[in-house]
Amino acid sequence: MQTCKAVVAYDGTDFSGYQIQAQGRTVQGVLEETLQQIARHPVRVRAAGRTDAGVHAAGQVIAFSLDWQHPTQTLQRALNALLPADVSIRSLTRVDAGFHPRFDAVSRQYRYTILNQPERDALRHRYTTHIARPLRVALMQQAGRYLIGTHNFASFGKPPQGNNTVRCVTQAEWQVNGVEISFFITANAFLYRMVRNIVGTLIQVGCGALTPVDVRDILQAKDRSKAGAPALANGLCLMKVNY
Amino acid sequence: MQTCKAVVAYDGTDFSGYQIQAQGRTVQGVLEETLQQIARHPVRVRAAGRTDAGVHAAGQVIAFSLDWQHPTQTLQRALNALLPADVSIRSLTRVDAGFHPRFDAVSRQYRYTILNQPERDALRHRYTTHIARPLRVALMQQAGRYLIGTHNFASFGKPPQGNNTVRCVTQAEWQVNGVEISFFITANAFLYRMVRNIVGTLIQVGCGALTPVDVRDILQAKDRSKAGAPALANGLCLMKVNY
Repeated sequence: MQTCKAVVAYDGTDFSGYQIQAQGRTVQGVLEETLQQIARHPVRVRAAGRTDAGVHAAGQVIAFSLDWQHPTQTLQRALNALLPADVSIRSLTRVDAGFHPRFDAVSRQYRYTILNQPERDALRHRYTTHIARPLRVALMQQAGRYLIGTHNFASFGKPPQGNNTVRCVTQAEWQVNGVEISFFITANAFLYRMVRNIVGTLIQVGCGALTPVDVRDILQAKDRSKAGAPALANGLCLMKVNY
Repeated sequence: MQTCKAVVAYDGTDFSGYQIQAQGRTVQGVLEETLQQIARHPVRVRAAGRTDAGVHAAGQVIAFSLDWQHPTQTLQRALNALLPADVSIRSLTRVDAGFHPRFDAVSRQYRYTILNQPERDALRHRYTTHIARPLRVALMQQAGRYLIGTHNFASFGKPPQGNNTVRCVTQAEWQVNGVEISFFITANAFLYRMVRNIVGTLIQVGCGALTPVDVRDILQAKDRSKAGAPALANGLCLMKVNY
């Protein structure tokens, strides 16, 4: 058996999320089916993170073990030939059998993109969330800075397991590219819906409904009911997992 | 009755083309249904061009007449609120009742985008066509220059009606943006599938299967069987209609 690590991109639009479920098309389901087709035995895929329905990935990381005698490049080609158009393998390498994409990861980066113009755009609706009101990015930038560091993020989400809500955020910055405003956030790990809850709150700052200092107070409250509603899934993309 | 001209964007992925059909979801069908909902009477939509299934538009132009007493901005907002996410109205203005988006157009511009890298990318599959083999863009550029001018384009398509296959091409150029290679072509009008047939042929030049001079010869042959197979629909986008 070979253990492989792969960097995977997917367009989340037509998926009910990453993780396999009883009902619905999932990224994990599609990957396991395709690997089974190639390896001719069941293959279990482990992933760095479980993205929600509608969330995209440019750099999800997975690992799996299979019977494979050929070069890894051949396996990557076979996967890209058989996987549906909305999932692709960006790279594939051999790793030690003990490698775990989730437990071995030291940090993850997400990007959330807002289309900030009066009218929505049919050609950008899959990868951006439309906000018609002009956003004050300087205030959102200022609010984002309060998130940097090791904090208890209980106000911004629940842990996927256990009850530790302390996370270490090393990047939280907005970048403006014309009418597209993107939020880049890097942390050792994320709580459930943490990025969307943070972005939903920062959008309120951009609209003037909250001040940057309010975000600091929300963080300090450690109370999920204090933060804004989560931003929509379609603007979110898992960019990179670092090891 | 007010006559309005609108610039429309759509993501062609989930449409069976622009033109209304007995079966399948069409852009025209969605526009007419939504306008009828707003105007409370049937509305017929005329368009500058009929794009095929899977083809996108950033600047399709339509015209329609309806009972409307309010500002055009209100109509645009109502349309963008009611239309599905994959169709949007970029601008909307009042025009003379006699305006016809197709007959009054003096030229149209299309863009065709190729993703030219070894592996395909799930996040770009909707708007680009993947070609794994490195393309020699300089040769494709040279070949494209033979198309500029007034020529009989019978080798590259059939007329939508009548039998005049003479068209005047004023722009035919490739632009490289990293791994994305885009072909911009402007003409007074286009034959059926003309852009995709031209791009399919120029891709053969980029792969070395044809020389630039072969493209000149194919053009001069005025014979549909001489050109390459049409490039896939998903890379194509109607960018602009000029009046």
